[in-house]
Amino acid sequence: MSRVDAFSRGEVPAPAAPGDPIERVDTPALVVDLDAFEANLAAMAAFAARHKVRLTPHFKAHKTPAIARRQQALGAAGFCVQKVSEAAPLVAAGLTPVLVSNEVVGAAKIEMLCELAARAPLSVCVDNAANVAALAAAAAARGVTLEVLVEIDAGNGRCGVAPGQPAADLARLVASQSHLRFGGLQAYHGKAQHVREVLYRKTMIEQAVAAVRATTAALQAAGLACPRVAGGGTGSFFLECASGVYTEIQPGSYALLDRDYSDNEPVADPAVPQFQNALFVLSTVMSAAKPEHAVCDAGLKSMSFESGLPRVRGRPGIQYKGPSDEHGVLALLDGAKVAVGDRLHLIPGHVDPTVNLHDWIVATRGQRVEEVWPVSARGMVF
Amino acid sequence: MSRVDAFSRGEVPAPAAPGDPIERVDTPALVVDLDAFEANLAAMAAFAARHKVRLTPHFKAHKTPAIARRQQALGAAGFCVQKVSEAAPLVAAGLTPVLVSNEVVGAAKIEMLCELAARAPLSVCVDNAANVAALAAAAAARGVTLEVLVEIDAGNGRCGVAPGQPAADLARLVASQSHLRFGGLQAYHGKAQHVREVLYRKTMIEQAVAAVRATTAALQAAGLACPRVAGGGTGSFFLECASGVYTEIQPGSYALLDRDYSDNEPVADPAVPQFQNALFVLSTVMSAAKPEHAVCDAGLKSMSFESGLPRVRGRPGIQYKGPSDEHGVLALLDGAKVAVGDRLHLIPGHVDPTVNLHDWIVATRGQRVEEVWPVSARGMVF
Repeated sequence: MSRVDAFSRGEVPAPAAPGDPIERVDTPALVVDLDAFEANLAAMAAFAARHKVRLTPHFKAHKTPAIARRQQALGAAGFCVQKVSEAAPLVAAGLTPVLVSNEVVGAAKIEMLCELAARAPLSVCVDNAANVAALAAAAAARGVTLEVLVEIDAGNGRCGVAPGQPAADLARLVASQSHLRFGGLQAYHGKAQHVREVLYRKTMIEQAVAAVRATTAALQAAGLACPRVAGGGTGSFFLECASGVYTEIQPGSYALLDRDYSDNEPVADPAVPQFQNALFVLSTVMSAAKPEHAVCDAGLKSMSFESGLPRVRGRPGIQYKGPSDEHGVLALLDGAKVAVGDRLHLIPGHVDPTVNLHDWIVATRGQRVEEVWPVSARGMVF
Repeated sequence: MSRVDAFSRGEVPAPAAPGDPIERVDTPALVVDLDAFEANLAAMAAFAARHKVRLTPHFKAHKTPAIARRQQALGAAGFCVQKVSEAAPLVAAGLTPVLVSNEVVGAAKIEMLCELAARAPLSVCVDNAANVAALAAAAAARGVTLEVLVEIDAGNGRCGVAPGQPAADLARLVASQSHLRFGGLQAYHGKAQHVREVLYRKTMIEQAVAAVRATTAALQAAGLACPRVAGGGTGSFFLECASGVYTEIQPGSYALLDRDYSDNEPVADPAVPQFQNALFVLSTVMSAAKPEHAVCDAGLKSMSFESGLPRVRGRPGIQYKGPSDEHGVLALLDGAKVAVGDRLHLIPGHVDPTVNLHDWIVATRGQRVEEVWPVSARGMVF
């Protein structure tokens, strides 16, 4: 079937096929450099293993079962998702156990959660007593037992109950329900991830660790065991690993790495892995009618911009100046030149919402397309 | 099939069915208020008809054939797209003629363009001589004739040749090709659309009109007829309509209207239609563990934010403070209260990239789902 016929039917066909030279990839396309990607996966897996901490990579970052499968092969102990719908393709592919590292609210969503829990080991987070009751009733109705983690606000300032006694009280409520099992704590500090200075990140994770300790003490006083303490992302995982209180880390971006994470100050300790940019939006220059700038074919519908502009790989003097919906205006500095038809590798500002814009990831090695992966959980925001 | 089974297969099922009460729509979901939407469509259609200007709405804004069909029924003279792939579902649905109001670069894309031109009347823009040659060669090879508009930079500072002689020279090159037909000028001033003050917008479109006049004079001197002059968006269409030089307008956002357009100063003239916000992201409050804020389930993967934050409809004191990938933090001002499970209508900052995040639009009237539309061209960035 021609590409036109697929588009005509409302489908988005893959922009390339395995074996294609990279010049034949239709643009704008999401491209992964397999060498960099594989090095990232191996480095994180080795680090987590060395620290005897479970690695449960966050699926929300890449939404691609082919990537999760490689993470599992390297020893991932399971996966995190942020939405119930994202858990479905993982469960279907046997990429389990799955932790929904988020609150699940509403009868339909809780029903989906229980339906999946009947098929595979599934856990979910809570920060609210009424939600505990709703989960317990739905689990009982379906005859499943849900593992439930209490989310504490470890400094992130988003969801989560206060650490210490309030968290222990909620845990006791969970433990008292016949079809729920208290599994431990979710204690992710998202705000720490992109703090540039390692020193400040360290201070923030120390606060998260203190919040965890206050809560595990309250749990112990209440006679509740706390088997799991989960948290940690690509900017802070080495700190949670060293903390002695976290049992598992949940990084997602490390596999593909965006420009924003690359802008973080590197960790001085050579034992802490440095990750490489493995994700690019391949874009074509489609206008160069003016001497001072050119225009490429990737804008707001191909990349997210709330974490800043993309960087252009390997083309000094070419700066991505700003997007519109389908265009990117390129500044040409220091005499840099581009021609219509030139192809640029753009390093997007933020992995997660960028990947979510694409139906396919084109996995390349050198100048050749090696695999083409469906982004199966794209659009699964439910 | 259950929703879980659809997600398991990598599909995104509709978040509601016709006839559902709005409380049953799964969130976050894109929701259209049909009363406001129909009023917007009718107002623009009547205005264009009154000014005897062709209305060719931009499909890139909504990517939804069901919406295009309603625009056609109200007299739209055709549609604009920004990408060749977007033209395919329109051609398949008989929603033609289609103008690709953009440059199409690269052999594969030009081949798609010619394949579609063999099925339906299709036009494309150019700003580059080498691109004219590539289009001519591909059209000849396939035995089709492409209508080609020369894009001029009417002040937008993105694509487009300089107005006047350079544009006329490119038009002459187009007209000299056996399988291309020079159709006129594309002269869209995107930067003018969101300038808040009507007076400044007016000044900017006066400059665009001057650029068009300089070019039509040069075309006349070259002996070239200029049947079409196309441009105009939701912020400026009334100015192009009044100009006497534009033959067609290309607004897209007016049908659904975003917060950013609502923030424009309204036009004093009561004959110029005011549009209403018809597009919402329906979101559920999923955490309220702290007194000072709450958290809803719609973030960067459900809305675009580069045009600013969404506004909350009809809930005074609740402000959307900031997104993360799957969350929105809500500030609670002046004693405003929300409960977990509350549902909010968020007015997104920018229509086009927000719609492109969703597979479905839930069309509601009052408290009931009337239709559910597939966003067929979502992800068609090629």
